[in-house]
Amino acid sequence: MQTIKEIDDLIKLISKLPGLGPKSAKRIVLKLINNRDEIIKPLANTLAQVYKNVTRCNLCGLLKSNKEGCNNCENLREKYTKICVVEDIADQWSIENSNIYKGYFHILGGTISSVGHRKEDLLVNSLVERVIKDEIDEVILATSATVEGQTTAYYIQDSLKKTRVKITKLAQGLPVGGEIESLDDGTLFSAFKNRSDLKSNSD
Amino acid sequence: MQTIKEIDDLIKLISKLPGLGPKSAKRIVLKLINNRDEIIKPLANTLAQVYKNVTRCNLCGLLKSNKEGCNNCENLREKYTKICVVEDIADQWSIENSNIYKGYFHILGGTISSVGHRKEDLLVNSLVERVIKDEIDEVILATSATVEGQTTAYYIQDSLKKTRVKITKLAQGLPVGGEIESLDDGTLFSAFKNRSDLKSNSD
Repeated sequence: MQTIKEIDDLIKLISKLPGLGPKSAKRIVLKLINNRDEIIKPLANTLAQVYKNVTRCNLCGLLKSNKEGCNNCENLREKYTKICVVEDIADQWSIENSNIYKGYFHILGGTISSVGHRKEDLLVNSLVERVIKDEIDEVILATSATVEGQTTAYYIQDSLKKTRVKITKLAQGLPVGGEIESLDDGTLFSAFKNRSDLKSNSD
Repeated sequence: MQTIKEIDDLIKLISKLPGLGPKSAKRIVLKLINNRDEIIKPLANTLAQVYKNVTRCNLCGLLKSNKEGCNNCENLREKYTKICVVEDIADQWSIENSNIYKGYFHILGGTISSVGHRKEDLLVNSLVERVIKDEIDEVILATSATVEGQTTAYYIQDSLKKTRVKITKLAQGLPVGGEIESLDDGTLFSAFKNRSDLKSNSD
């Protein structure tokens, strides 16, 4: 194949992205080449801007613009009394897109696990500081329903003991559309354990 | 959703790429953010390099590095006597990847059509020049089997009349794995018309 180093490099880089392989990377590179001014130039500039201007906030873990500061824990436009604690940015985005939660976020940056992060790597101390400083009255633990996620939740709960904040965690049970016959034992166990009384359903 | 202009711009740009939508663009942006130095930086640089250094050759239509010149029609490493004429880069890449053709390429940049390119827009004059200058003895027309592709092929054939070069076009017929019952009438017609004699199969 005709080899132009820049093009080969571009195909290799793009095929590393999630959901893409060498074939789709080539298709994307063709599109890029045929849209030099409409896509390549703005994409190169925007990536350079993101690299230069967007970092994770050391305090709350969210993405922030270096120009504007962190909109989640510094420049507070709205005053909330809840913090939702999640593992990573993808979790934050999912919850935000669902529009079911209004409040601050706090991104730990992972979970405690024997092979991955140690508890010192996670933004837990700054969570405690935020809870005190911002007069938070509820911390919602939205870590995954995995062993690591739950271990991490216990650790946070322990770290927040000295504050008087209310700590909640997301309910476990049947997912919407979940068929009983296809559920795993752990989910079934949670669903039974946390079953609700239909008479007091209006609470 | 937490709005950081650079991130929103990046998601919008990436979701314009073929095969990607807003959801997969977000997934890609998350991957990028979590790999600042491994992916964002080199990707921004490589795109800028491609924008700066890679253009299409005015003579043969292939991509060329502005630093090195065109490897297909200027810096000829190997001497061939055939030129394969295709519509665009994607066609060239497909044929190259198949490894069934060894020779030069010539990319027209499209086909003649009532709504798209006029014949002056296509690199046909330079094809005639190349045929003469590079002592080509066969021009293989590999334009699509569409009305526009075939019209373009006729126009090229006409333009090459004054040279004595042999002009061939790709065979039409059953694609490999093609089932007779699912073929369109045009393909069946070509397959019948160009049927080969089994006795002289060894030719």
